[in-house]
Amino acid sequence: MKTSVTEVLGIEYPVICGAMAAVSSPRLAAAVSEAGGLGVLASGMLKPDELRRQIDETKALTNKPFAVNLLMRSDNADEMTDIIIEKGVKIVMSGAGSPERFMPKFKANGIKVVPVIPNVKTAKKMEAIGVDAVVAEGMESGGFIGETTTLPLIPQVCDAVKIPVIAAGGIADGRTMAAMFILGARGIQMGTRFLASEECEIHDNCKAAVVGANDTATVIMGRALRHGVRGLRTNASEKLLEAERNGDGKTFHNVLVSSVGNAVHGGDMTDGSLMCGQIAGIIHDVKPARDIIVDICRDAEDILKNFKL
Amino acid sequence: MKTSVTEVLGIEYPVICGAMAAVSSPRLAAAVSEAGGLGVLASGMLKPDELRRQIDETKALTNKPFAVNLLMRSDNADEMTDIIIEKGVKIVMSGAGSPERFMPKFKANGIKVVPVIPNVKTAKKMEAIGVDAVVAEGMESGGFIGETTTLPLIPQVCDAVKIPVIAAGGIADGRTMAAMFILGARGIQMGTRFLASEECEIHDNCKAAVVGANDTATVIMGRALRHGVRGLRTNASEKLLEAERNGDGKTFHNVLVSSVGNAVHGGDMTDGSLMCGQIAGIIHDVKPARDIIVDICRDAEDILKNFKL
Repeated sequence: MKTSVTEVLGIEYPVICGAMAAVSSPRLAAAVSEAGGLGVLASGMLKPDELRRQIDETKALTNKPFAVNLLMRSDNADEMTDIIIEKGVKIVMSGAGSPERFMPKFKANGIKVVPVIPNVKTAKKMEAIGVDAVVAEGMESGGFIGETTTLPLIPQVCDAVKIPVIAAGGIADGRTMAAMFILGARGIQMGTRFLASEECEIHDNCKAAVVGANDTATVIMGRALRHGVRGLRTNASEKLLEAERNGDGKTFHNVLVSSVGNAVHGGDMTDGSLMCGQIAGIIHDVKPARDIIVDICRDAEDILKNFKL
Repeated sequence: MKTSVTEVLGIEYPVICGAMAAVSSPRLAAAVSEAGGLGVLASGMLKPDELRRQIDETKALTNKPFAVNLLMRSDNADEMTDIIIEKGVKIVMSGAGSPERFMPKFKANGIKVVPVIPNVKTAKKMEAIGVDAVVAEGMESGGFIGETTTLPLIPQVCDAVKIPVIAAGGIADGRTMAAMFILGARGIQMGTRFLASEECEIHDNCKAAVVGANDTATVIMGRALRHGVRGLRTNASEKLLEAERNGDGKTFHNVLVSSVGNAVHGGDMTDGSLMCGQIAGIIHDVKPARDIIVDICRDAEDILKNFKL
């Protein structure tokens, strides 16, 4: 499936597995890239040595392109950038701040830069500093979110920039992928769909929770703390909402980190937290990353070619 | 443009103008219905005599079908139902509660019932009580909103019910309409696009504000009061957010009612409030309701027939 996104990223299918803190792993990233999509490592919660090791592990599993997600406002952004360059990673997905000051370094090293953006203003700013594409992410997605939803966001971003637009937030099957192409996107990024992949190394209870979720299973926590994250409703989400009501950012942060660990590693879906998008309700199975990618592209192409009223 | 929605409602184009409190009027409803869509009167803020008069005025302007939006939990729902029957209105769009106890009356009088629903559970419940179609409305829409966004909502509702699904929230052009059909909807409901119609009787300053809005121009107010409404950011929206933070539902209600009046009738877009959806950013002109309907259906059909990657 050739699009402007597969061309600019050098991949076979225009499907990216979004970076997921505490979830993304060399095994999942390599599986996505091996299948022809773009796997992504999440550097946000890693120490420099851990990122080095994850890149090496991913390279041992695939020769195909993969990306590293880099949080531009993190204290170690300079060091992480140098590791990415040193290790020969060729695609950076940037978030949490602008990659502007690193652009000369990235360009000099042949690294493609693809920021995740929540609105038109940021998309235009990113195009102006020379990024290669943008992921426009709607607030139906899991994890950290903005305020604009995917349906109004994608056509407005497509009208505003000339670089390729990758749609994210609310996409998990051929219908939702095809709808994004109709709106002007030429690639998709999914997180929640890949939570329910065989190669994702979260606890089986987490995968079961995604498969069992319905359209109202998620909640936004921390919005009043300028820290909005979407995840499944659990006892932990109630605690997080209470910390938000109390304006207690420190408790919010501590409960978030510990409860995500409880869920992802310990399988505790009562006192644990799993970041998850609103589209979980159309995910009914756990399957290999390759099947996720091949199936969604085949279904989307079929819908786009053969749609009849 | 024939679909299951045009068939069940007896209209020519599967386009509904959503009910808008303080905005919907006989002139706008008749213009939409005359053009082949479905015009809707909003009974929520009307007294019984005003509804009678509005129905008579609409009938004087069109012989085509139009609907009345009925808030099922309002104190005068019984009286309003009797007026609808007495006046021979043949379509009820229901909201704010279930139309269940009125269903025998509606059926006996040949009235089609189409509830506006925010999630799958309510859609299934409405199908079970025998409604004719549902409007599934995402939280990107203006005015009162739920929590699920349109992109994940539509395919999940379409999977859950057999009756026709009308998509609402985030739709204003051929692309967004076509995307909804791809997801399984067979009709659309728009509010914000019709705010910028010639026949809409709001102040010209309000129409200019819709045309000038961007993707982040709206804000949700009153969510913590279980009363979330989306509208344009103004001085009044700041006051409403403050009332929300103070848990002051009475002030919230009073400021909302008065500031909507200030905007809609007085044209005050500083201390006024205009309920408006996130899709306003792709609306660039004020045009006749007929052009809105004909253009969007033509563009959507063209996209669906001729899409090429």
